[in-house]
Amino acid sequence: MFSKEEYDIRMNNTKQKMLQYGVEGLIISNPSNMYYLTGYDAWSFYVNQVVLVFIDMDEPIWIGRQMDASGAMMTTWMKESSIRFYPDNYVQSTIRHPMDYVAEVLVECGQDDKKIGVEMDSFYYTAMCHERLQIGLPNAELKDTGNLVSWVRVLKSDTEISYMKNAAQIVEKAMQAAYDTVNIGVRENEVAAAITHAQIYGSDDFGGDYTSMVPMLPAGKMTASPHITWSDRRYIEGDILTLEIAGCYKRYHTPLARTMILGKAPGHVQEVADVINEGINETLYHMTPGTTAEEVNEVWTRTIGKHGYVKNARIGYSIGLSYPPDWGEHTISFRGGDHTMLQPNMTFHLMPGLWFDNFGVSITESVHITEDGAETFASFDRKLFEKTVE
Amino acid sequence: MFSKEEYDIRMNNTKQKMLQYGVEGLIISNPSNMYYLTGYDAWSFYVNQVVLVFIDMDEPIWIGRQMDASGAMMTTWMKESSIRFYPDNYVQSTIRHPMDYVAEVLVECGQDDKKIGVEMDSFYYTAMCHERLQIGLPNAELKDTGNLVSWVRVLKSDTEISYMKNAAQIVEKAMQAAYDTVNIGVRENEVAAAITHAQIYGSDDFGGDYTSMVPMLPAGKMTASPHITWSDRRYIEGDILTLEIAGCYKRYHTPLARTMILGKAPGHVQEVADVINEGINETLYHMTPGTTAEEVNEVWTRTIGKHGYVKNARIGYSIGLSYPPDWGEHTISFRGGDHTMLQPNMTFHLMPGLWFDNFGVSITESVHITEDGAETFASFDRKLFEKTVE
Repeated sequence: MFSKEEYDIRMNNTKQKMLQYGVEGLIISNPSNMYYLTGYDAWSFYVNQVVLVFIDMDEPIWIGRQMDASGAMMTTWMKESSIRFYPDNYVQSTIRHPMDYVAEVLVECGQDDKKIGVEMDSFYYTAMCHERLQIGLPNAELKDTGNLVSWVRVLKSDTEISYMKNAAQIVEKAMQAAYDTVNIGVRENEVAAAITHAQIYGSDDFGGDYTSMVPMLPAGKMTASPHITWSDRRYIEGDILTLEIAGCYKRYHTPLARTMILGKAPGHVQEVADVINEGINETLYHMTPGTTAEEVNEVWTRTIGKHGYVKNARIGYSIGLSYPPDWGEHTISFRGGDHTMLQPNMTFHLMPGLWFDNFGVSITESVHITEDGAETFASFDRKLFEKTVE
Repeated sequence: MFSKEEYDIRMNNTKQKMLQYGVEGLIISNPSNMYYLTGYDAWSFYVNQVVLVFIDMDEPIWIGRQMDASGAMMTTWMKESSIRFYPDNYVQSTIRHPMDYVAEVLVECGQDDKKIGVEMDSFYYTAMCHERLQIGLPNAELKDTGNLVSWVRVLKSDTEISYMKNAAQIVEKAMQAAYDTVNIGVRENEVAAAITHAQIYGSDDFGGDYTSMVPMLPAGKMTASPHITWSDRRYIEGDILTLEIAGCYKRYHTPLARTMILGKAPGHVQEVADVINEGINETLYHMTPGTTAEEVNEVWTRTIGKHGYVKNARIGYSIGLSYPPDWGEHTISFRGGDHTMLQPNMTFHLMPGLWFDNFGVSITESVHITEDGAETFASFDRKLFEKTVE
């Protein structure tokens, strides 16, 4: 839980942005945005739930399933009357839909004839959710406000930064656990188990939360595809592994990727790692307030281009709090066309992996933009890890 | 990977159902349905990806992000030309949308003037996905076919049942790990870490996969709300915990919940546990082929009603393979109005938790409907676990 003052600032910033976007209300389905504004935290986003924000209402309204309402009362800062719930026979029903109930609440609050922003491309705001709201709110003007609240989240408070620093301590431990566990004859799932244990155990000072993506640790030729998770295959000599994992503290994430080899790194893999590391160093140096996201990508492109390499995917994105299935904020991306200017207390996953037909190398950093530059959250050797067999 | 014969049967059953629903094609976004038909398995569903099935095409077409296409080639049974991908500048862009690309592929295949089913209320089929398809496919008739493929999945093959039996062995180990770890002074996250390690380590014979929901282990008054995850609070004497977890083997789940108390169970908690157990025994006895889902719920309602208890939520649902955020199939629910008849090789999570204002008790079973009755997948004492402090 954050302080009431911090929630007030978040609400105020959200309302400011609503005025800019020209809406009087918001229907928020993205669980990260719900948590950000209210503090609500539970694994209940597999059923429909929303937070309503209106310019002329002091508190948001939380709406969810009946059995989750007591959790909302316990984890949010709002008064009990701001927690509303629909009966269980709305859940996965072919007759009723939870958004019918949401529409009824809006009518009851006299907010059904307003300009209301919806998160058209947000996880958990399905096509059916939108259709039912359109039917239930014939007098409203539903307008796509995209990731409005996510854009408010882009600038972190000092408390949020401190959470991410805790998360970074956790990801260091998790990456070390992976290195300590991986070996010839060990099964991939055993490394995943060691990572996950370290992520959730956290440190002796604070516990870890679940990460919004599970460990991704493709091995061998599977490293050509970065989002493969794991199997129970046993590692063999010469296997290359890319490990993309995160630490998470109270839903705040710091991802980190490293590449490990069971044996000596072949020359062509070492070369790619060296190019990536040069690119990271150069890019980090240029990640100063005032630089644009596009310019960050240009530094990277120029640096690896000198060695004849090209990357045809964005090299990073804004991070912070999140819920599955993604730890990205879906706001700023380091790529051509993104003219967002870096500012102090923005936070990014600098993700310059390079993937080829039958292997890949991932080395990444979570980065905090400070007053005069960039610092990595985690402190973990940025090298190709060779594990030689005993 | 399943046998080609099993994929052929799945495709054929899907096409039969498409004929019943009156569609010539399907655009599938639900990752569980994608995996079921193609074998594609990666944590990449946080970007748009679909599988297309058309009555007049032998193979499905997989469409995803460029960097995930090599994973699709490695994990699916289809030929390389059935794997299509969109460039990275479609990802989380405000200019392009991956569904624009999907529409282009449909045009290219001459399938854009057909009756095409979409999963209107499926995770990851956002309102924006639907809007862009409507714009990109002006000659198609997009029709909500709901959980069409999920309904095909309701009847399990023997191989699927064997996967769920592996998952059950895993959940037994994970629940035991929870019991062994929990104690006064231990932090909640340490129990979650032990559970997760056991889930992913699996057994010495086979490894575990990640579960579609993380462990939910509210304690104390938080047990009134079943989907709370964990914090780093230390357990105190008298704490009651409800643990709802699953085992997962190659994406197939068997959930299980138990309730534990740090000390002697208070009389009112023991009474609730006894009522639930009587209800489970009676309900399991009546879960025979030919019984309807509604009748299963009636047996439960009658049994606990004799003791003055009422439950105002469904008491179970169909389970099998799944991806986050849910391990339910969103098909059959044990509740009034669901007239689906039980058949051999259907599988359910019998979930009769009872939640009150300041505590709850969860004791559940994953159940396999056999030729003449029901058997639980896991074998784990169905009692209130008291952990007395040393």
